[in-house]
Amino acid sequence: MDTIKIGVAGLGRLGLIHAENISVMKGVELFAICNLDADFNREIAERLDVRYNYTEYEEMIKNPELDAVCIATPSGLHTKQIELALEKGLHVFCEKPIGLDTADIERTIEKIDSHKDMVFHLGFMRRYDPDYLYAKQLVDAGEIGDISIIRSYGIDPISGLEGFVKFAKKSPSGGIFLDMGVHDIDAIRWITGSEVSKVWANGSNKAAPELDEVNELELGTATMQLENGVTAFVVLGRTASHGYHVEAEIIGTKGMLRIAATPEKNKVTLFNEHGVVRPTSQNFPERFKEAYIGEMRDFLDCIRQNIQPEVTALDGLRGTQVAIACQESLEKDSVVEVTY
Amino acid sequence: MDTIKIGVAGLGRLGLIHAENISVMKGVELFAICNLDADFNREIAERLDVRYNYTEYEEMIKNPELDAVCIATPSGLHTKQIELALEKGLHVFCEKPIGLDTADIERTIEKIDSHKDMVFHLGFMRRYDPDYLYAKQLVDAGEIGDISIIRSYGIDPISGLEGFVKFAKKSPSGGIFLDMGVHDIDAIRWITGSEVSKVWANGSNKAAPELDEVNELELGTATMQLENGVTAFVVLGRTASHGYHVEAEIIGTKGMLRIAATPEKNKVTLFNEHGVVRPTSQNFPERFKEAYIGEMRDFLDCIRQNIQPEVTALDGLRGTQVAIACQESLEKDSVVEVTY
Amino acid sequence: MDTIKIGVAGLGRLGLIHAENISVMKGVELFAICNLDADFNREIAERLDVRYNYTEYEEMIKNPELDAVCIATPSGLHTKQIELALEKGLHVFCEKPIGLDTADIERTIEKIDSHKDMVFHLGFMRRYDPDYLYAKQLVDAGEIGDISIIRSYGIDPISGLEGFVKFAKKSPSGGIFLDMGVHDIDAIRWITGSEVSKVWANGSNKAAPELDEVNELELGTATMQLENGVTAFVVLGRTASHGYHVEAEIIGTKGMLRIAATPEKNKVTLFNEHGVVRPTSQNFPERFKEAYIGEMRDFLDCIRQNIQPEVTALDGLRGTQVAIACQESLEKDSVVEVTY
Amino acid sequence: MDTIKIGVAGLGRLGLIHAENISVMKGVELFAICNLDADFNREIAERLDVRYNYTEYEEMIKNPELDAVCIATPSGLHTKQIELALEKGLHVFCEKPIGLDTADIERTIEKIDSHKDMVFHLGFMRRYDPDYLYAKQLVDAGEIGDISIIRSYGIDPISGLEGFVKFAKKSPSGGIFLDMGVHDIDAIRWITGSEVSKVWANGSNKAAPELDEVNELELGTATMQLENGVTAFVVLGRTASHGYHVEAEIIGTKGMLRIAATPEKNKVTLFNEHGVVRPTSQNFPERFKEAYIGEMRDFLDCIRQNIQPEVTALDGLRGTQVAIACQESLEKDSVVEVTY
Repeated sequence: MDTIKIGVAGLGRLGLIHAENISVMKGVELFAICNLDADFNREIAERLDVRYNYTEYEEMIKNPELDAVCIATPSGLHTKQIELALEKGLHVFCEKPIGLDTADIERTIEKIDSHKDMVFHLGFMRRYDPDYLYAKQLVDAGEIGDISIIRSYGIDPISGLEGFVKFAKKSPSGGIFLDMGVHDIDAIRWITGSEVSKVWANGSNKAAPELDEVNELELGTATMQLENGVTAFVVLGRTASHGYHVEAEIIGTKGMLRIAATPEKNKVTLFNEHGVVRPTSQNFPERFKEAYIGEMRDFLDCIRQNIQPEVTALDGLRGTQVAIACQESLEKDSVVEVTY
Repeated sequence: MDTIKIGVAGLGRLGLIHAENISVMKGVELFAICNLDADFNREIAERLDVRYNYTEYEEMIKNPELDAVCIATPSGLHTKQIELALEKGLHVFCEKPIGLDTADIERTIEKIDSHKDMVFHLGFMRRYDPDYLYAKQLVDAGEIGDISIIRSYGIDPISGLEGFVKFAKKSPSGGIFLDMGVHDIDAIRWITGSEVSKVWANGSNKAAPELDEVNELELGTATMQLENGVTAFVVLGRTASHGYHVEAEIIGTKGMLRIAATPEKNKVTLFNEHGVVRPTSQNFPERFKEAYIGEMRDFLDCIRQNIQPEVTALDGLRGTQVAIACQESLEKDSVVEVTY
Repeated sequence: MDTIKIGVAGLGRLGLIHAENISVMKGVELFAICNLDADFNREIAERLDVRYNYTEYEEMIKNPELDAVCIATPSGLHTKQIELALEKGLHVFCEKPIGLDTADIERTIEKIDSHKDMVFHLGFMRRYDPDYLYAKQLVDAGEIGDISIIRSYGIDPISGLEGFVKFAKKSPSGGIFLDMGVHDIDAIRWITGSEVSKVWANGSNKAAPELDEVNELELGTATMQLENGVTAFVVLGRTASHGYHVEAEIIGTKGMLRIAATPEKNKVTLFNEHGVVRPTSQNFPERFKEAYIGEMRDFLDCIRQNIQPEVTALDGLRGTQVAIACQESLEKDSVVEVTY
Repeated sequence: MDTIKIGVAGLGRLGLIHAENISVMKGVELFAICNLDADFNREIAERLDVRYNYTEYEEMIKNPELDAVCIATPSGLHTKQIELALEKGLHVFCEKPIGLDTADIERTIEKIDSHKDMVFHLGFMRRYDPDYLYAKQLVDAGEIGDISIIRSYGIDPISGLEGFVKFAKKSPSGGIFLDMGVHDIDAIRWITGSEVSKVWANGSNKAAPELDEVNELELGTATMQLENGVTAFVVLGRTASHGYHVEAEIIGTKGMLRIAATPEKNKVTLFNEHGVVRPTSQNFPERFKEAYIGEMRDFLDCIRQNIQPEVTALDGLRGTQVAIACQESLEKDSVVEVTY
C-alpha cells in the first residue's frame, strides 16, 4: 500500500507526541501540521521534516493529497473538526474527549456512521498500554473470576498545575470529570464490559485554591454503580507530589489485580537517605509512551486493512455522558442516574 | 502495684488471643475464664494456668478477687456485660463493636460515665498496630499535608468463610458494616479527626452465594463524606484468596501514604514458578499480633496509672452509628445522612 | 540520506529479533537474510518482505547494493564474518561475544581499526536498556558517590534449558562465562569505568546434570577485583524457575541502587492463592525489547552521521579476556589474574 | 518453677536491650546489672527496678541468689567471663562473638562441655528473627530445592559511624569480619548446614577514611566456598545511608528466596517528592526487636526445661574461625583455606 499521509491538528503536548510518533513510523508520512502559532509550526516542520504547515484547520484538510487527520486541538473543537474531515473523505484519529456536549457528539456519531469507509479512532490510550492489555487478558481469561469492584485513579503531577491553570484560563477543560475522568470511565467500561448506571461525585480544592478562580477542581472523586452490579471508585487529581499516578485495581471473585499500584518510572530502586525509593513516572508522555505508539499503529492498521478499531465513537459518547453525570452529581451533591 | 487479676469472657478466636497475651505479661494474672463449653474451659485453664473457670458470666464477675474483665463474647451481649462489670467495680476491656443498637450503647455510655474510676477500653486494635501508629504520626506531623481522601479495606480470607457461615447461623453478626466495617470507620475517624456525615453503600454476593441464606454479604462498599470535606472509600469482604487484607490509603495535599498496600506476611520474597511472590498474612491474629498486645498493655497501663485510654466508648457509638447508616443505605440504595 | 540496506546473518532467536526490528524502522531496509535453512529463509523473506535470501554468508556480502550486515551467527564464526564484511566495505553490527579466542579478536580489531570509515557496533544491549541507562546517569551524576561494590546477575529461565542443551551439542557455547558472562562483565566495565584485574570463579550443576554431558554449567559465580578497588560479584545461571532474571546492584559511598531487583514483567500485581505475585519477564526478547531497538537505532545513527559508537571492539576483547580468565579460574580452582 | 534471677553484664546498646527485655518477661527477674559507670548503673537500676548493681563482673557473679548471666561486654572479655560464670554454677547467655581468639574459645568450650547442667546460649539473633525462621522453614521443606548460592549482607547505618569510631579507639572490634561478619557466617552455616572451606576477602574505606586511623574497614566483602559446593557472598559495611541493611538471598535448584531484600521499617509506603518511598529500619534494636526477645525466651526455656539450645558454643568457634580466615585473606590478598 502507498504511504499514508497524515495531518496533525493542534501542536500542544499531545499533538507533538502524535506528530513525533508518526514521523518515525514506516509506511506513513507526517505530511502536514496545523496550529495557531506560525513560528512554532515552521520550527516543528523543519525538525520533523513536514511538507505543509497551516494555521487554519479548514485549509489543511483541503490539501488533496492528505489521507488522514489526527485531531489534538482543544476539546471544544473536536466534533466540528471530525465532521469536516469526514466530509473531505479523510480518516480521523481524535483525542479524547470526543466532545463536551452530548447533542454535538450524537450528531457527530451520525456523521461517522454515514462514512463507514472512513476509519474513526478515539484516543483512549490506556486500552493500548501493555499493562492494561495484560490485565485485560487476565480478566478475560477468568484469572480473577467475575469482577465485583474496580478502582481507577488518574492523578496529574503538581508540576503541571501552573500550566493547567494558564490553559484553563484560555480554554475551558469541561471540568475534571470530562477533562481527566473520561479515561478512567473508559477503562472501567472496557474492563467490565458494563455501563455505569448511577454516580455520586465529590470534589475539593485544598491543595490548589488557585483553581477556584478558573472554576476547576484539584481533586474529584466518584463512586459508580454499574449495570452488572460492579461498584467503581474513581479518584482524579492534579497535585500529586510524586509524579503522574495512573492506577487501577480490579477485585474479582477469585482474586484481585492491580495495574501500576505504584507509578514506577522504570526498574531502578534507590537506597538513599530518604529510604528505599522507586523513582516515578513524571508525566503522561513518559507513562504512556508505548500506548501512544500502539494506538497510532492501530489507527494505521485499520486504514490499511479497511476495518474499524475496537474503540468506537460510542465509547466516546458514553464516557462523556458519565462524566457529565459526575459533574451534575458534584453540583447537586446527590446521586445521579446516568441517562443514555 | 499489685498484680492485676483479669477474667476473660468468651473463648472464641479473639478471646483466646487476649487470654494468651495476658498469660505471659508481667504484673497481671489471667485469673478467670468464662465460656459456655466447660470442657474447653478446663483445657484452657490447664494450658494457661488459670485459677477459675466459669460457664456463666454473672458468676465470674462475682469473684471478689477479680480486678478487670476482658469481654470477647458475641457482639449482642457486650453492652449488658459491660454494665454488669462496672456495677461490680471492675475495669472493662471490650471487643468491638461496643453494641449493635445505638440506644443500648447510649445507655451503656451513661453507665461508663458514671464509673469514672473504672477504666473502659475498646478493642479497636488498628490504633495499636505499629504501621497505623507510624502513619498517624506522619499525618499528625504534617508530612502529607491536609487529608483529602482516605481509603480503607478490610477483606477476610476465603479460608474463614465456612467458619463464618456456621457462626452467622448461630449468632447474627449485625451485617458486614457492623461486623467488619466498624474497624475501618474507626480508623477513618481516628486518622482524619472528623465525623462521617453521609454514606452511600453497596454490596454483592457473587463469590459466596451461601451467604444469602444467612442474610450476609460477601462484599460491602461504602463511600463517605466527612464533615471536614474528606471523601472516604471503604471496601469490606470475606473472600480474599490471598489472605487477610487490611489496607489503608491517605491522600493529602502534600503527599500520599499507604498502610499495608500489600498484606505482606513478613520480609521474605519467593522467586518461583508463579513469579516473584510475597507471602501474605493469613488471618487477623497473625496480622495484628503486636496490636493485640499493645492494646492490652495500654489497658493495664491505664488501670495502673488511673487514667482513661484515648479510645472511648463514644468512639464505639460513632462507629456503630456510621455502620448502621451504611446498612440502611445498602437497603434503601440511596445516600443516607448519619444522625448522631 | 538514502535508505540503508541491511543483511542479517543468522536467524536464530536474536537474528530474528534484529530482522524484525529492522523491518519496521524508517530509513532502513531489511534487504537480505542469510541462514542455513533455505525453507525458513523463504518463510521469513515473505513475512518480513525481504528481497534477497541466502544460505551462504559469503554470497550475501557479495550483493553490491548491501550497505551493512548484522551478524547473529554462532559465536565461533563472528571474527571471520566481521573481517569479510569489512573487506567488502560493509558496516557491521555484531552480536556478543565478538569472539571466543583472544588472538582472533585482536586480529579482527586490527582489521576494524584499518576500516575507520566503516561503523563497527557490538551487541551489548544492556548499555541500551532504559533501566541501565537511567542507573548509569545516576551514577555518573554522583547520586550514589564512588562505587565500592557491583553485583551482576544473569540467570536464564529453566524453560530454555532443553533448547540450550540441544544447541550446545551442535555448537560449543564457549562456557557459561563466555556465553552469558560477557554481558555482566561488560556492564561492570561500563558502569565502573575500570578493568578487572583478578577473578575467582566457581560453578555447579545441581539442577541440570544433563549439562555435564555437554560440558556446560548450570550456575557460574565469579568474584572480581577491579583496578580501581571495586569488588564485583557475578552470578550466571540457566535454571531460574521464575523467568529471565537479569539484575544489577551498585553500592556507592553515598547510596546504593539496584536495576531490576525483581524481574517484573510489567506493572501488574496479582493477589491470588499464591500470595501477592508480580509476573516476571520470561525471556530476553521480552526483557530487552527496547534495548534491541535502541542498539540498532544507534548503529544506524552512527552510519548516517559517520561516527563510531561508544561501545567498541576493544570492549568485546576485554569482556572475552575476563570471561576466559573466569573459565581458567574455575578449572584451576584458584584466583587468576587477567592478562591484557 | 521459681523466678529465674539474671544479671546483665555490660550496659552498652545490646546490654540495655537484653536488660529491658528481661525486665518485662514473666517468670524472670532482672536481678543485677554490672557496668563500669556507677552513675549509669544507678539510673538503670532505678528505671528497670533492679535490686543489685555492680561495677565489677567478679563481684556480681558472687551474688549467691543469681541463677544466670547475660554477657554483653566488649568481645575480648567474653571467654573469661563465660568461664567464671560457669564455675559459679550460673547459666550463661553470651553475645556474639564468643571470642576473638580460637585457642581461648576452644578452652572455653571445654569448660562449657564440663558444665553440661548449665545452659550456654550464644546471641546469634538472626536465628530467632521471624523472617529468617520462615525462610529456614521453606528451605528445610524443600521449597527451593538444594542450595547452590547464598548471599548475606550486613550493612550498618552511617548514623552509627561516629559512635563506632569512638568505640573502636577504646576497644578493638577485631575487624569487620569478626565484629560484624560472624552473624552472616552463622546464618550461612545455619541455613546451608555446611562448613566454609575457603574464603577470598576484600575491603575498602572509600566512604569513611577516618576508619583508617583505627585500623578498621568501612566495607568488607568475602566470597566463600562451602564443603557442600555452595558459593557464598558476604558484604559487610558501616555506611549505609538508608538505614540498617541486613539481607540474605538463597538460590536453590528449584527457586530463590530473599530475606529483607529491602530493609523496610514497616508496612507504610510514602508517595512524596522523592518518589515512592519505603521507610527503612534504622538500627539493629529496631530490626531485630523480636529476635532479641525470642533468643532470651529460648534461653529461659532451656533453663526451665534443662536442655541445651540448638545454637552452640561450637557455632561460635566456627564463626570466629571463618572470620579470622577472612581477615587473613584480606591481609594476604589471596584465597585462604579455613582450618578447623
